Formats: sequence, C-alpha cells, structure tokens
Amino acid sequence: MEKKAFQDYYPDNMAYCYGCGRMNEFGLQIKSYWDGDETVCLFQPRPYHIAIPGFVYGGLIASLIDCHSTGSAAAAAYRATGRPMDSEPALRFLTASLHVEYLRPTPIDGPLEIRSQIKEIKGRKVVVESTLSAKGEICAKGQVIAVQIPDHLVPSGD
Amino acid sequence: MEKKAFQDYYPDNMAYCYGCGRMNEFGLQIKSYWDGDETVCLFQPRPYHIAIPGFVYGGLIASLIDCHSTGSAAAAAYRATGRPMDSEPALRFLTASLHVEYLRPTPIDGPLEIRSQIKEIKGRKVVVESTLSAKGEICAKGQVIAVQIPDHLVPSGD
Repeated sequence: MEKKAFQDYYPDNMAYCYGCGRMNEFGLQIKSYWDGDETVCLFQPRPYHIAIPGFVYGGLIASLIDCHSTGSAAAAAYRATGRPMDSEPALRFLTASLHVEYLRPTPIDGPLEIRSQIKEIKGRKVVVESTLSAKGEICAKGQVIAVQIPDHLVPSGD
Repeated sequence: MEKKAFQDYYPDNMAYCYGCGRMNEFGLQIKSYWDGDETVCLFQPRPYHIAIPGFVYGGLIASLIDCHSTGSAAAAAYRATGRPMDSEPALRFLTASLHVEYLRPTPIDGPLEIRSQIKEIKGRKVVVESTLSAKGEICAKGQVIAVQIPDHLVPSGD
C-alpha cells in the first residue's frame, strides 16, 4: 500500500489548488511526505515547463516551493499538536510571503527534489525553508511564511 | 495596428518560456508594455488557476510577477542604452531572486494587473518592484532581481 501524501488528506472541497490539489485535473498535483524531520516532494517537470531550452522556468520553481511549503506547514501543525492528518477541523495554510533565490539554471531532464525544514511554528504562522535540487545539485532556495487559513475563507464542506 | 508587447520582440529561439514565450502553446503567454515610466501586464486567470474556490493560487501570482519583471528588465535595459527592442544582440534576463508578499486573497473572476517600476539598473542587474491588483485592490507585491543572461546560456540562433 502506498503511503499517503500530505495533499491526500486535504478535504475534497480544498483539494482543487492548481499546485497541490489532487482533484485539479489541469494542475501540478504535487505530493509531499515526511522524511524524518524534513519534508520532501519529487516533481517531474513537463517538457513545456521551460524558460530557455533545457531549463525549468522560474515560475514553476516558485510554485513548487510555495505549495510544498504550505503543505509542509499543515503537516507540521498537525505534528506539533499531536493530531492525525485526517482529524477535524482541517488545518490548511496560505502563503503570506514567498522568497526564492535562483542559484543556477535548473535542468529540466530529470526529477526535481524539494526538501524543506520547519524553522518556526508560532500561533497560526509557520516558517518553512527549502532547497530545490536537480541531479544532486541545489538550484534554488526558498523561504515561505505560511499562515493558517482564516475560518471565513475555508470553503464549507458540502 | 496593435502595439507590440515586450515579449513579441524575443527572438524565436528564446520565445518558449512557459510564462512569457509567445511560442509556448501550453504557457501563459503574458504581454507586457510600457505605460510612461512603469510597465504593465494584464492577465486573465483561467478557472483552474485556483488556490481555494474563488481565489487565484499563489504560484500563478509568483509566475506573473517573475516573467513580467524579467521582460520589464529587458525593456528597461534597451531603453537605458537607447536601443530599439528589435536590435541585436537580444537582451534577455533571468531571475536571480523573487520575493512576493501576498497581502490578501486574489479574486479569480476578473483580470489581474501587474504594474512595475524599475528601481535600479546596474551593470547586468535590474531591480524591478511590482504590484498585482484585482478589481482595483492591490493583492500582492513583488520584487525581482533580474540578471542579464550569460552569453553561454543564450540559445544559438538556428
């Protein structure tokens, strides 16, 4: 049986994000997991995700870091409170700020690995720092400040 | 006759970026223009570009700010040197760093306006600051540090 990803626990009505929603048929449908105290996501860019030939466009890198980080923030919030990820109410996070440093061109002909550490959990805020690697080399670094979704923005569960 | 966008001047072999390449049939194909000393880009998100229902996902916002900023950096470099945008050699920019602050949820049911100012041009580096608005309200702010593409990464013109 395959391990469930963070995104597999999102309630159906919150599972349509273009970056991470498993029910968005046009989207990236990323999958994130714990690896010890870090979180990890592997993603195979599609041939049309290029900036210049051979290299991934920066918006995809930003999108992967963003959505993997908000998923990681939720997972960390469950873990910090000792709650299983399928318990109610669902904890979901939005991005307050995103910072990406592009260190070198990211080759497109292989999987990208986004690996993150939870740097801080404080109230409804979680700080997540990430690296994005291709072929064993770090190509970008990211920092996301994620904030738990305000109750009035959580879609009703109908 | 319609005004040409910055991206319409990109040489064919550099016009496949998912965010801004006019020849990437799967991509966003954004169009950026001068408006006085500012640059502006209008983009209509597609229904599947959602984060949670009704709101744009953050990765699209980051992608729009990123690609509009590198296009703006190139336009500013041409303008600073008094060169027309169709002169050779082509000036193209990559993103060294991208920072986005998400100020409020961005509604998806209307066009997004990205409006940018050139804050600094120094050697091969251009700093671009942007706002992203929907329905007249600023929903996100961005800063991009763009760097002129090193010659060895420029695709050959065949």
